[in-house]
Amino acid sequence: VPEVVLGEGKTADQIVAIVRELVAAGDDVLVTRLDDAAARAVLAEIPGLQHHPIARVATFEARPIVAEAIEPVAIVTAGTSDVPVAEEAFQTLRMIGIPATRVFDVGVAGIHRVFGELDVLTKAPAVMVVAGLEGALPSVVGGLVAVPVIAVPTSVGYGASFGGIAPLLTMLNSCAAGVSVVNIDNGFGAGYLAAVINRLALSERPD
Amino acid sequence: VPEVVLGEGKTADQIVAIVRELVAAGDDVLVTRLDDAAARAVLAEIPGLQHHPIARVATFEARPIVAEAIEPVAIVTAGTSDVPVAEEAFQTLRMIGIPATRVFDVGVAGIHRVFGELDVLTKAPAVMVVAGLEGALPSVVGGLVAVPVIAVPTSVGYGASFGGIAPLLTMLNSCAAGVSVVNIDNGFGAGYLAAVINRLALSERPD
Amino acid sequence: VPEVVLGEGKTADQIVAIVRELVAAGDDVLVTRLDDAAARAVLAEIPGLQHHPIARVATFEARPIVAEAIEPVAIVTAGTSDVPVAEEAFQTLRMIGIPATRVFDVGVAGIHRVFGELDVLTKAPAVMVVAGLEGALPSVVGGLVAVPVIAVPTSVGYGASFGGIAPLLTMLNSCAAGVSVVNIDNGFGAGYLAAVINRLALSERPD
Amino acid sequence: VPEVVLGEGKTADQIVAIVRELVAAGDDVLVTRLDDAAARAVLAEIPGLQHHPIARVATFEARPIVAEAIEPVAIVTAGTSDVPVAEEAFQTLRMIGIPATRVFDVGVAGIHRVFGELDVLTKAPAVMVVAGLEGALPSVVGGLVAVPVIAVPTSVGYGASFGGIAPLLTMLNSCAAGVSVVNIDNGFGAGYLAAVINRLALSERPD
Amino acid sequence: VPEVVLGEGKTADQIVAIVRELVAAGDDVLVTRLDDAAARAVLAEIPGLQHHPIARVATFEARPIVAEAIEPVAIVTAGTSDVPVAEEAFQTLRMIGIPATRVFDVGVAGIHRVFGELDVLTKAPAVMVVAGLEGALPSVVGGLVAVPVIAVPTSVGYGASFGGIAPLLTMLNSCAAGVSVVNIDNGFGAGYLAAVINRLALSERPD
Amino acid sequence: VPEVVLGEGKTADQIVAIVRELVAAGDDVLVTRLDDAAARAVLAEIPGLQHHPIARVATFEARPIVAEAIEPVAIVTAGTSDVPVAEEAFQTLRMIGIPATRVFDVGVAGIHRVFGELDVLTKAPAVMVVAGLEGALPSVVGGLVAVPVIAVPTSVGYGASFGGIAPLLTMLNSCAAGVSVVNIDNGFGAGYLAAVINRLALSERPD
Amino acid sequence: VPEVVLGEGKTADQIVAIVRELVAAGDDVLVTRLDDAAARAVLAEIPGLQHHPIARVATFEARPIVAEAIEPVAIVTAGTSDVPVAEEAFQTLRMIGIPATRVFDVGVAGIHRVFGELDVLTKAPAVMVVAGLEGALPSVVGGLVAVPVIAVPTSVGYGASFGGIAPLLTMLNSCAAGVSVVNIDNGFGAGYLAAVINRLALSERPD
Amino acid sequence: VPEVVLGEGKTADQIVAIVRELVAAGDDVLVTRLDDAAARAVLAEIPGLQHHPIARVATFEARPIVAEAIEPVAIVTAGTSDVPVAEEAFQTLRMIGIPATRVFDVGVAGIHRVFGELDVLTKAPAVMVVAGLEGALPSVVGGLVAVPVIAVPTSVGYGASFGGIAPLLTMLNSCAAGVSVVNIDNGFGAGYLAAVINRLALSERPD
Repeated sequence: VPEVVLGEGKTADQIVAIVRELVAAGDDVLVTRLDDAAARAVLAEIPGLQHHPIARVATFEARPIVAEAIEPVAIVTAGTSDVPVAEEAFQTLRMIGIPATRVFDVGVAGIHRVFGELDVLTKAPAVMVVAGLEGALPSVVGGLVAVPVIAVPTSVGYGASFGGIAPLLTMLNSCAAGVSVVNIDNGFGAGYLAAVINRLALSERPD
Repeated sequence: VPEVVLGEGKTADQIVAIVRELVAAGDDVLVTRLDDAAARAVLAEIPGLQHHPIARVATFEARPIVAEAIEPVAIVTAGTSDVPVAEEAFQTLRMIGIPATRVFDVGVAGIHRVFGELDVLTKAPAVMVVAGLEGALPSVVGGLVAVPVIAVPTSVGYGASFGGIAPLLTMLNSCAAGVSVVNIDNGFGAGYLAAVINRLALSERPD
Repeated sequence: VPEVVLGEGKTADQIVAIVRELVAAGDDVLVTRLDDAAARAVLAEIPGLQHHPIARVATFEARPIVAEAIEPVAIVTAGTSDVPVAEEAFQTLRMIGIPATRVFDVGVAGIHRVFGELDVLTKAPAVMVVAGLEGALPSVVGGLVAVPVIAVPTSVGYGASFGGIAPLLTMLNSCAAGVSVVNIDNGFGAGYLAAVINRLALSERPD
Repeated sequence: VPEVVLGEGKTADQIVAIVRELVAAGDDVLVTRLDDAAARAVLAEIPGLQHHPIARVATFEARPIVAEAIEPVAIVTAGTSDVPVAEEAFQTLRMIGIPATRVFDVGVAGIHRVFGELDVLTKAPAVMVVAGLEGALPSVVGGLVAVPVIAVPTSVGYGASFGGIAPLLTMLNSCAAGVSVVNIDNGFGAGYLAAVINRLALSERPD
Repeated sequence: VPEVVLGEGKTADQIVAIVRELVAAGDDVLVTRLDDAAARAVLAEIPGLQHHPIARVATFEARPIVAEAIEPVAIVTAGTSDVPVAEEAFQTLRMIGIPATRVFDVGVAGIHRVFGELDVLTKAPAVMVVAGLEGALPSVVGGLVAVPVIAVPTSVGYGASFGGIAPLLTMLNSCAAGVSVVNIDNGFGAGYLAAVINRLALSERPD
Repeated sequence: VPEVVLGEGKTADQIVAIVRELVAAGDDVLVTRLDDAAARAVLAEIPGLQHHPIARVATFEARPIVAEAIEPVAIVTAGTSDVPVAEEAFQTLRMIGIPATRVFDVGVAGIHRVFGELDVLTKAPAVMVVAGLEGALPSVVGGLVAVPVIAVPTSVGYGASFGGIAPLLTMLNSCAAGVSVVNIDNGFGAGYLAAVINRLALSERPD
Repeated sequence: VPEVVLGEGKTADQIVAIVRELVAAGDDVLVTRLDDAAARAVLAEIPGLQHHPIARVATFEARPIVAEAIEPVAIVTAGTSDVPVAEEAFQTLRMIGIPATRVFDVGVAGIHRVFGELDVLTKAPAVMVVAGLEGALPSVVGGLVAVPVIAVPTSVGYGASFGGIAPLLTMLNSCAAGVSVVNIDNGFGAGYLAAVINRLALSERPD
Repeated sequence: VPEVVLGEGKTADQIVAIVRELVAAGDDVLVTRLDDAAARAVLAEIPGLQHHPIARVATFEARPIVAEAIEPVAIVTAGTSDVPVAEEAFQTLRMIGIPATRVFDVGVAGIHRVFGELDVLTKAPAVMVVAGLEGALPSVVGGLVAVPVIAVPTSVGYGASFGGIAPLLTMLNSCAAGVSVVNIDNGFGAGYLAAVINRLALSERPD
């Protein structure tokens, strides 16, 4: 598991100091919620750091991380505006060595798009569903698969979405069993949880 | 259109007095939100009044109301606990002469049930969707039909459903176009609106 | 019905790419929630795109859209600050070919102004009422007309309007029947719904 | 001004003890928020106490209170369920000697009813407007009169009225000037304020 | 009473156009919520317009407004940050010809300061109390005077003041009778109401 | 310090079993939030247990608790309905051996009553202020004393007091320094904290 | 997996009818949220049904369910009032054949109690943490184990716990990674999710 | 005790004027919530003023303040983003002459870090705990020490932390006795209260 540095609320100088120390110690590093200005400053100082601008993260691999040879986690988004949160989860999983598949832009207003991805969803050991607006997608997906569904509300929307309260409540009240919820926009937390669930499967495997 | 008496917050005596006067005037009457005790008291006093206990309404038809010969409105519920609100809407439509079809218990956790009713839904001139818990069903239905969808949040649920706030917000943020929302548990309002929409269709029809 | 592109949350480059593809495919296009900077960038790239700055939308007509020869929908606003939302609805209706009439600045504090427009309101097949502050206007209009009233709360106001919560609650609790509500500032949704209601009237018309 | 005893949250014994002492001291007394059981117990103990069950108050007049010879305050309600709060205000005014006129059941869904009472409203030195549901009536009345409008939200309603939050916010955001607001269901407070405003007029009058 | 133009949400050009027309018609004009940039632009175009930067208003007097020869309204503030709202009220009263006295910075944490102003407060025909933070001052003042108290919550504060919700609730729940409340930061509304109350006193005065 | 048993949410049988065991072990015991029915059942089973019905607590003293010979803590209430919470605090202090003085019914609407108690308040090593409705009293007291003020909001009130939210926010935003807040109706917590503060003073005292 | 019947909101007759049918079909059955009165009525009608009153569930095993031979899930509660929700989860797991261990009454105010159970917690394939009041326990447990933590807020508490909102927010904001949240009081959902996570581990195991 | 000037909401000129006057009068001065731009302007004008940028305060010591020779207050933070609020408290204590020890970055996700500081915590006469996110730390600390715990929620976090509401509610519902709460981000208030508690200890000390 990489060392994780929350970029938000830290100056570029503070991030550089922390990351430099971790890199020197031979750790893998994941910096999250890193805005573009901070990213530029940090990348200029730390050789080998990689920037993933859509996910707003930077990563450092002490040695190349190879994904486990298992079925990938499915990362589902309702709309394109939910992608940054999904990508934060994707990078988190990648840094832990858990493979993931992107299933983007399959919101419930066009329910046939979800069905076109049923094969991917039912094979996955866990499904993460990232959605803003009304946040209905995890309930639909939860009714279609038999594995843990990690619901991630996003702050995408306006008016009565109240910065993500609407999809958060939707997901907490999901009528589908097997669904649990993380904080609004918490892509890292969802990715980490998906990894923990998969590690469990791996560790349970008798040699 | 019948005269409507809101039973909630009135004593049985007050309801009897109002209904008696309306009946004497030759009006059709719809009493809503009538609990069982009040219903018994009122029925004992007003001959010809009919009680619909699940809908919690009583109705009086000055002369038998005959439904228009048009495609029925579809009244969809997510779960069985949403039925009382749906039935209030059904009785409202019936008293205005608009036919309606019940499509009950097709919540999103078993999305195939909605698809089994697609034929009914796409033929209807308007679809009402009644749902508590997370209230995701109107978004799914709204993506499947091309007619007005009237979303009715219900207070069915517990915990973070907050007496219907969760499905209310879900419906207001629906990603499907053509959806509008009425107050929590407002079966009468939804039925009346569906009737108004259909009356419009009727009245626009050139002879 | 045009293809709709939500401008908010997309870069000018992303909007240009999407619109270019739709135009090439021969579609009518409606871009909503387009701020001035993005509008300039997009207009410079897509010939034939029209900007409607008050409505914050851009439109492309593959061939000129001609309005249906029916009574226009009435779009009512309480105050001048509600006009942008009303104009978003107007452009949405125009792109679908449904005529609309503007009845602006007739808030309840000067109730006589509403009465001066009664003739327009009662002839319309549907009335949309756009209001911020206390949002009382849809209740008044709902008591005056017999057609569907689409209430649109706006974020206009300050203090205890809480970004549109006050008029949203007002409209959900409307004592007038026939009123339903869409999300705060959702001019597009209200316009689309008005069009769906009117299309219904049109399609019901026997040949 | 009478001595005021808030009945709510006190036992019948406590109320009897307090009222007995005040009566012995020669005071006028107003007991508010007195439920029926407590009222029976208190009336049995205090001779001369009068019960006003709809207003949920009891009153004692040390000597008969005679109303001032001035234009009466107008007490307006939107619906019949708002009457108990209005009657609490009426009794408060009566005990201070300020005359009041009831203008009940003139909610905005039937706006013509308000206009039928314009003569009464414009003559009143102050207008109190009591309304639940969406609480739109004070804005309409505020646009019609030139005197102080005291808006009283009530907990009448269901669903998204949230026990009176909806009309409270409506009234605080009123677009009509000259409107101020008291607590939900606070008939006493509104009555007292109306009396204070009128006393001011009286006391300013040069002899 | 002057014509009132709400500056917020309007461009300088729009304000200039409206004010120019009113001035040409011979009206007194009060422009509220006018930020510094807009003020500079508007003042450059309208000769005779006066800017009151702390109150964020501009005023035009068709002919000099002379205050009535009556006791001044008391305008009380808890802290210096509440002064802009108080000054908006002061200018509103001034433009209607009602005299007012400033009693600033007498918050409850130093309760002796209120007592030092008792003489002014008890003589005033109405008292306006402007307070943010916990908003306790109107309750204290309401217990000291026998005239109408207009409570104005302000958005001054941080954390759990929630933009003025804390003082708003405090004021609505005031244990002192004779207190009513206007919207958060609504200096104009409070000033107008104070004027209406005083006009009432004036008009009741027999000649 | 006594063993504390929260009575709320436990059956009489459960309380009896727990208290019996504690008494057998020689402990002092404080049972809080004990309703009358449970109290009767528990007292019938545990000899020596004392019931304090207004405080809704029962106490058992293994040997008589003697109060420390120090200045008593002042327990202040705004109104009589706040007394049960104040008494819960009083009993908590008594069981720890800290003396306390009751200063009841000195709400801010009659501010002179607080001043009549200044002598008691300024001598106390800590002041607890218990208030519902608008909860303004701790701010006033906080401005008068130089010792820690423990503010206890109560659920006393109606309408916009929202079960104690109004006084809770008032107290959190107090403009007086030296004030901190405990949960709504938490008399035990306030009493315990006052005791901890006083024990500190005692333990700091060099022998 | 058993058939699940939500008892809440259904009459005893309705529950009997549904359960009878499921039993006849040879299914395992779990009835949740079954109050004592309904339980008595249902048990009288369905032979072989077992009542678990603390968990408020009834169960029917078509044939005896044998737990998998795997490490048990740990079910942790903060206080004794959280036990009913924990027991609902326990029975859910038992009916699916997943073993579970109870680790009750180890709230953070006595943090040493959690440490006394570290051995059990770190061996478990998943840990469920059930807590009301401030809901801090999942964060502490999440920092101690490397497996998925399912956080269940309960409505246990008073005042500012707002029926479970306080622990819900606490858990959503948990600073410990690997934590996800279900609805307030949702013992069934948490149990089902724990089972799904464990089934995953089982099914991943190569034969 | 120093004179305290709240910098927020004041211009640099206003702050300079106030501080200059206080310095001239020979007072110690503490300016809080001073942003960097204002700090630069004020420091250029007032010789001898010291800036503490992390705490966002400036201080002036008329003569060097010497700390009392007592055990220091412990100031605990959960994370590094909570440090500015903690430093505001530290400077407040320092200006009153109360020594304090920083125990930073010991959040509950790594509970062992708290235990490493037990010695410091149990010796302190009062412990202040500053935490954002889920705010669980005061409950843990409250269970470990026997002195007053002052809980300070911070606005650190995102999503469902709602600007500090989550930790505020957590702290108000703390299951540990001896904990009280101040406003979100109120480092000054917490520092002042800690000083008042310690002064109490000092003043109680017999000479």
